[in-house]
Amino acid sequence: MSTKLTREYINDLRSVIEARNDSAALDMLEQLHPADIAEIYENLSLEDATYLILLLDPEKASDVLVELEEDERESFLKALPSDVIASQFIDHMESDDAADVIGDLAEDKKQEVLLHIDDVEQAGDIVDLLSYDEDSAGGLMAKELIRVNESWGVPTCIREMRKQAEDLDEIYYIYVVSDENVLLGILSLKALLLASASTRIKDIYDAEVRSVQTDTDSEEVARIMEKYDLIVLPVTDSIGRLMGRITIDDVVDVIRDEAERDYQLASGITTDVETTDSPARLSRARLPWLIIGLLGGIVVAAVIGRFEEDIQINPEMAFFIPLIAAMAGNVGIQSSAIIVQGIASNSLGLESTYRKLGKETIVALMNGLILSGLLFLYNYFFSHNLALTLTVSTSLFVVIIFAALFGTLIPLVLHRMKIDPALATGPFITTMNDIMGLFIYFLMGRILYGIFI
Amino acid sequence: MSTKLTREYINDLRSVIEARNDSAALDMLEQLHPADIAEIYENLSLEDATYLILLLDPEKASDVLVELEEDERESFLKALPSDVIASQFIDHMESDDAADVIGDLAEDKKQEVLLHIDDVEQAGDIVDLLSYDEDSAGGLMAKELIRVNESWGVPTCIREMRKQAEDLDEIYYIYVVSDENVLLGILSLKALLLASASTRIKDIYDAEVRSVQTDTDSEEVARIMEKYDLIVLPVTDSIGRLMGRITIDDVVDVIRDEAERDYQLASGITTDVETTDSPARLSRARLPWLIIGLLGGIVVAAVIGRFEEDIQINPEMAFFIPLIAAMAGNVGIQSSAIIVQGIASNSLGLESTYRKLGKETIVALMNGLILSGLLFLYNYFFSHNLALTLTVSTSLFVVIIFAALFGTLIPLVLHRMKIDPALATGPFITTMNDIMGLFIYFLMGRILYGIFI
Repeated sequence: MSTKLTREYINDLRSVIEARNDSAALDMLEQLHPADIAEIYENLSLEDATYLILLLDPEKASDVLVELEEDERESFLKALPSDVIASQFIDHMESDDAADVIGDLAEDKKQEVLLHIDDVEQAGDIVDLLSYDEDSAGGLMAKELIRVNESWGVPTCIREMRKQAEDLDEIYYIYVVSDENVLLGILSLKALLLASASTRIKDIYDAEVRSVQTDTDSEEVARIMEKYDLIVLPVTDSIGRLMGRITIDDVVDVIRDEAERDYQLASGITTDVETTDSPARLSRARLPWLIIGLLGGIVVAAVIGRFEEDIQINPEMAFFIPLIAAMAGNVGIQSSAIIVQGIASNSLGLESTYRKLGKETIVALMNGLILSGLLFLYNYFFSHNLALTLTVSTSLFVVIIFAALFGTLIPLVLHRMKIDPALATGPFITTMNDIMGLFIYFLMGRILYGIFI
Repeated sequence: MSTKLTREYINDLRSVIEARNDSAALDMLEQLHPADIAEIYENLSLEDATYLILLLDPEKASDVLVELEEDERESFLKALPSDVIASQFIDHMESDDAADVIGDLAEDKKQEVLLHIDDVEQAGDIVDLLSYDEDSAGGLMAKELIRVNESWGVPTCIREMRKQAEDLDEIYYIYVVSDENVLLGILSLKALLLASASTRIKDIYDAEVRSVQTDTDSEEVARIMEKYDLIVLPVTDSIGRLMGRITIDDVVDVIRDEAERDYQLASGITTDVETTDSPARLSRARLPWLIIGLLGGIVVAAVIGRFEEDIQINPEMAFFIPLIAAMAGNVGIQSSAIIVQGIASNSLGLESTYRKLGKETIVALMNGLILSGLLFLYNYFFSHNLALTLTVSTSLFVVIIFAALFGTLIPLVLHRMKIDPALATGPFITTMNDIMGLFIYFLMGRILYGIFI
């Protein structure tokens, strides 16, 4: 159970696979969880990996397939005929996983695989699920669930459950529906276990059930499950009929993906990439922001170009260009990160924008005073140039205030315009603040050098 | 059930509270989930909020208390006597929540509240839980669970479960233990429901149970539950005795916190802050990185100072300082973000450091060629200065390669030194790359201007 995936273990496994020693390979894999086998997969050649997966019993092989990275699964399935995909894998999966796997196939292969599925009900469930948007509750849900009628008694309920439970890995809740399949409430296994045989379902179920509709956005689903500490969430259609259920493990992936996307956006990486992706893909994901940064740099160069004479006369002005630019960028990113997180966790909901701006201004004033004070002291004692000392420290102060306000306002504006505010952090705000910050710096320089020299 | 927390609703509630109209307030709150009431809490004065919470029945009031932000809970509890805290709140909580709440109290109040808990078993559980580190499995777990002996039959098991289930909100799994309380396996409710009355537990339980020890780090707990799609995870002591269990909802909070911390670190914010914190706290959280940035800027100023004459002769060199600095920063952050995420999601586990570095070098070469090519074209057509054109584009190319390698290496080195690699992204790497990038830039300038002028 607790076999560690050491390099040694992988090497041992690799030699067993290369020798095509079936029984030794199966022995080694027996103690491993499908998620562990999926992790080993990326260390094997496609040929070896295919051999390995087809060696496993179909139940376990299907679980491994579900755990693979999308691109690994794609290359693996490309080599297999449609009937093998259907009978060895899809037939053994829960409907949501099956729909995810089939959804990634090419259009014609998708149809072929669907036609090869033996279980007509499973095929129908998959077709239903494929019709929903991937990022909606419908796209996240599975069709398998335990459904009981409110008018049943406890013994009927248990008998029906036994029948329905065959398709399910695990039961967490039982859903109570009307004759028309409208969701009425949930029945916990605890309540069922504690009830006497003569009890009717309608007397023990809990009508306070939270549900979402098939078109609810997946991030909203995650927010609801997280806020209300739910393990499973039922999904209905627009008139309340029970269509499926979403389990927390699928939502944990949504939460993780969302957090990773925000982090990547803040770091200037556009599409979702993994370290295992190809260099070309990794490069493409980064170029857009870098090109924006390059254009921003060219604009900044033009802005500074307006002050060419000032630099020729006082070249020491150039020394502090990076300091001003970096501080403007850092302050801006700090402010926007706080706002982006506030929006994501919804804690801004009831607090007003003005209060937010006011607070950021106070923070910026405090930090600006401290930092420009420190810089003043440094330059005063080490540069012996009063005009430079005053220019650098006063413009740092002004730049910090502006950068904080920009950093706060831009994500709020984007959010109101229904654009993902996470776009605001990272290179975008840095570039904006560089341009603004250096313009302020050289303008200040011209004024203060004019006065003090 | 689906009452929306609109501003109107909050205003209505506020006026009902101000009029101290008990029954109207209770009516309004009846449909709300404790998590919603906790959200309203921050919009009320302490006095009104206290009135509101004490109005609720103890079960619900305790749930609200658990959902409050830490600082809100602290200020609320400060005003209450120890016996009220014990009888109105702690007695109605699950042990893990109770331990969290008590753990945040001042030392002497903690003791008083513990002495006022009526249920001696509950008090004992809390004292046990308080002894664990907050960021360990012991700190996350609750003591309430269903424990059955392997030698029992199904009827005994169900009878015992009914007794034990009283303390529990919900049952997901039943834990099977030996006479010495050593964890042997789990029994799913599904298996129990499908078993006949004559079956023995030892014949139907699943011995393949994953567990952690009380001292396992909470991030490791999150990783395990996420990887293996677990809803509940049992916790044992070092000799395998069952101590408690962790549910996924608590782990979702750990995952969210971890992601937020990484994001904040990358944005140059040190301690965990929320938009609702005070300006002084918000300022303190940001100053450390800003001061590092300031010092970095001063070092950069000294580096550029070495090239004062070059700037005086060719002031146009100064125009592209921000471009070089920004690109070095952006490229470095992109590389480090990919590595930090890889480390966090453990997908780097089996791939070697050298392969990683090699791949980043290829990506950097591709991006470097494209970007410096674009910059070359721009300067060639618009600046009419061959020395500048060559200096800016060749040094951009070199700087991109260096920045990518730094961005990759620094988090890997930090990780090996057991320092959180998320520290590497954000201002730290930006500052390092600024210094390195501008040194390369001016050195290149001196060489190329020497050749071409």
